[in-house]
Amino acid sequence: MKRTKLRELFAQYESLADQEITICAWVKTNRAQAKFGFLTVSDGTCLTPLQVVYDEALSNFEDISKIRVGASVMVNGKVVLTPEMKQPFEVHATSVTMLGDSPENYPIQPKRHTREFLRSVAHLRPRTNLFQAVFRVRSVAAMAIHSYFQSRGYLYVHTPLITSADCEGSDQMFKITALDVVNPPLNKDGSIDFSDDLFGHKAYITGSGQLQGETFAMAFSDIYTFGPTFRTENSNNKTHANEFWMIEPEMAFCDLNGLMDIEEEMLKYVIKYVLDNASDEIAFCDQFVEKGLKARLENLVNSKFTRIKHHDVVDLLLNAGVKWEFQPSYEDDIQHEHEVWLTSHFNGPVFVTDWPKDIKAWYMKVNPDNATCAAVDLLVPGSGELMGGSQREENMEALEARMKEMNINKDKIDWYLDTRRYGGCVHSGFGMGFERLVMYLTGVDNIRDVIPFPRTPGQCEY
Amino acid sequence: MKRTKLRELFAQYESLADQEITICAWVKTNRAQAKFGFLTVSDGTCLTPLQVVYDEALSNFEDISKIRVGASVMVNGKVVLTPEMKQPFEVHATSVTMLGDSPENYPIQPKRHTREFLRSVAHLRPRTNLFQAVFRVRSVAAMAIHSYFQSRGYLYVHTPLITSADCEGSDQMFKITALDVVNPPLNKDGSIDFSDDLFGHKAYITGSGQLQGETFAMAFSDIYTFGPTFRTENSNNKTHANEFWMIEPEMAFCDLNGLMDIEEEMLKYVIKYVLDNASDEIAFCDQFVEKGLKARLENLVNSKFTRIKHHDVVDLLLNAGVKWEFQPSYEDDIQHEHEVWLTSHFNGPVFVTDWPKDIKAWYMKVNPDNATCAAVDLLVPGSGELMGGSQREENMEALEARMKEMNINKDKIDWYLDTRRYGGCVHSGFGMGFERLVMYLTGVDNIRDVIPFPRTPGQCEY
Repeated sequence: MKRTKLRELFAQYESLADQEITICAWVKTNRAQAKFGFLTVSDGTCLTPLQVVYDEALSNFEDISKIRVGASVMVNGKVVLTPEMKQPFEVHATSVTMLGDSPENYPIQPKRHTREFLRSVAHLRPRTNLFQAVFRVRSVAAMAIHSYFQSRGYLYVHTPLITSADCEGSDQMFKITALDVVNPPLNKDGSIDFSDDLFGHKAYITGSGQLQGETFAMAFSDIYTFGPTFRTENSNNKTHANEFWMIEPEMAFCDLNGLMDIEEEMLKYVIKYVLDNASDEIAFCDQFVEKGLKARLENLVNSKFTRIKHHDVVDLLLNAGVKWEFQPSYEDDIQHEHEVWLTSHFNGPVFVTDWPKDIKAWYMKVNPDNATCAAVDLLVPGSGELMGGSQREENMEALEARMKEMNINKDKIDWYLDTRRYGGCVHSGFGMGFERLVMYLTGVDNIRDVIPFPRTPGQCEY
Repeated sequence: MKRTKLRELFAQYESLADQEITICAWVKTNRAQAKFGFLTVSDGTCLTPLQVVYDEALSNFEDISKIRVGASVMVNGKVVLTPEMKQPFEVHATSVTMLGDSPENYPIQPKRHTREFLRSVAHLRPRTNLFQAVFRVRSVAAMAIHSYFQSRGYLYVHTPLITSADCEGSDQMFKITALDVVNPPLNKDGSIDFSDDLFGHKAYITGSGQLQGETFAMAFSDIYTFGPTFRTENSNNKTHANEFWMIEPEMAFCDLNGLMDIEEEMLKYVIKYVLDNASDEIAFCDQFVEKGLKARLENLVNSKFTRIKHHDVVDLLLNAGVKWEFQPSYEDDIQHEHEVWLTSHFNGPVFVTDWPKDIKAWYMKVNPDNATCAAVDLLVPGSGELMGGSQREENMEALEARMKEMNINKDKIDWYLDTRRYGGCVHSGFGMGFERLVMYLTGVDNIRDVIPFPRTPGQCEY
């Protein structure tokens, strides 16, 4: 008999009324009474579990009564509509077969577990409601991103993870090697001889695909990356991981204003897509993770995004009549307390543009004032910075001067400069950390709880 | 004035007839005559270039005449339908402005370049027709894969790339470290002390997300991964790279036959999606890469996939009346010459099942004969193996015995065994190398030409 997945069953239970179906799923609870009992089971294809009723007419009634939480079962039974009850239907079992047992000490019992405990069983936590919801949202949000860009003709490009370009600063990057690290070949001075390594020199895993992405934007106009990214940062906090996923779109013939148009349109599209395609999961997070989450997301879809220069932001902050922990400054980054105030002040997302050039990256276009650059950060209510981008310096002389000023080794990325040598043009791009987006979408406040198997300092299990 | 992308223009040129539009693009050719000239330009949003006509009425006619290949331009002009000509319309310029110059020695001139040369300018080759087509197919195929799985309720899971589980054999994996490799901390015996490293021990970048994927299948029923994968293999041939992308679906409550159903349905879906959404690119590859490509792909969509056991395959090969270079054997893998013969013999794709257990992986389900296992390779005409998968050994005792037999270190992946301890069930999965698929879709025969920036032994530029 063909198995019916719960996702299909919940979508069409009315047309299946009184029909016999087969379900394979895991037991969430088993409430056995003298002459009948209830199993709630889930197969993970949707968030809502199914109620199965079994009774003493079944030859193995006693065995069924003893099936423990976590066991996998096959249920044959009839779909019975129950309009008078909370759930709209249930399945009356004609047979229940245990497929895989689960012992008494199964860690995921139907009770409240702390997130700290669940991190210690990261391979089992997807079986809980919270992580069913979070990882479904993660999956749907990833599809939303692909769907947004592909429907607009963007090229999805897989930029390389292994790289020899260490222009971001190689101390921020993991080194990789195929050498025997216990007995590596050595140079005369005792250092490791990487000329024997697989690529013939030192290699890293990258922190960004932007530079390679730009070369593709100079061929396809509109491109995006969506892949894993690595940082060696040794910081143990709620928002940093050593491995995370990033989206880096890059658009030719696009200036800073065009960039902000795209960021705003994309974010609204993704949120609406998730609200439409993971409504049960958002409702769950709204109830159990962050009250008001759904309204916050719906508000964002309908909100107007403010655009304001960094200089004007600092003016505002200085005149806000607030006693800041960190004094706002025209030369500095803005702090979390400022971000919170700003999105509240404007009652919506805020693009902060034209940042002091000295605190931004070397490839960003310097403005005519020679003090600021065409960079933009997007701040969103309740979360802070969600995306960072800029118009790129397309002028070769200006770019080379800036690289010299900032001690960027030109030799290693001469290929990158070809994007300015051969048919260069105004172009812009941004980066969005995917985990920040998932945290924003679910209300979950620790990055460890939105990554299937998080990698943070000292943590690399599984 | 709003820029019109060529993709939009070609989709709706009829409704834009006689209207003024603005185009930003790169010059492919410039044929200047005494009183007028023709630019063909492309912005990379579609494969077909646009013909722009300019004449001496333009004040900068002389300058336009001199614009070189590769330069970026902005063109204002009128859309003029040309039903009598090969291309259905052209743009008559009212102004042409050069945005970014391109020098005389621009490497991508409008002539035939060898693929070897183009590999040496991997950052510029996406500007050629061939790589416009190949990388567009790659992007569309990636979307097809997400679209197939998401529309069927599969969970997209980002399994970790950094791992400490070296059960695949750590000599196949890149080691990674955040330590200073020039002066690393040492143990007393002179070896590197990895307890000081970021994760507190040795770490690798992974060659597969399968094991972590299985833990998610035990929670969501149907999951897939789609991400980069790494091998240290030191082999320089047309089909291997050290960094490539892989799709690894894993399904609970699914046996070997169910697995083959999914593989077949998915492949047909993806090919049809690419035929529908990258028709120009497939037509280009059909004309310039592999004659008959389009028919080959269409045939596959309509073909019946054969299912045959490895033992029966060897019977067939031995009785084929062919003088094989490699003698077919009941104990061995089958060779490329056998694969070619098989797909030709069956006139379509062939699932070879029930392989000798000794040449397959430890997690595959051993058959009751204790000689073969429930593994399956999919062979496709003209290419050989495209996917490999198996039913997994769900029986804990059998799995542990097999691990012992094959010297798999149980301690490091005890978490994985929990998938059998707690509600285990029949489950199956497969892996598909994404580059193999793109090669199959485009007819391109070297893996270096379907990866934006390929990493192969000795090659890690850009």
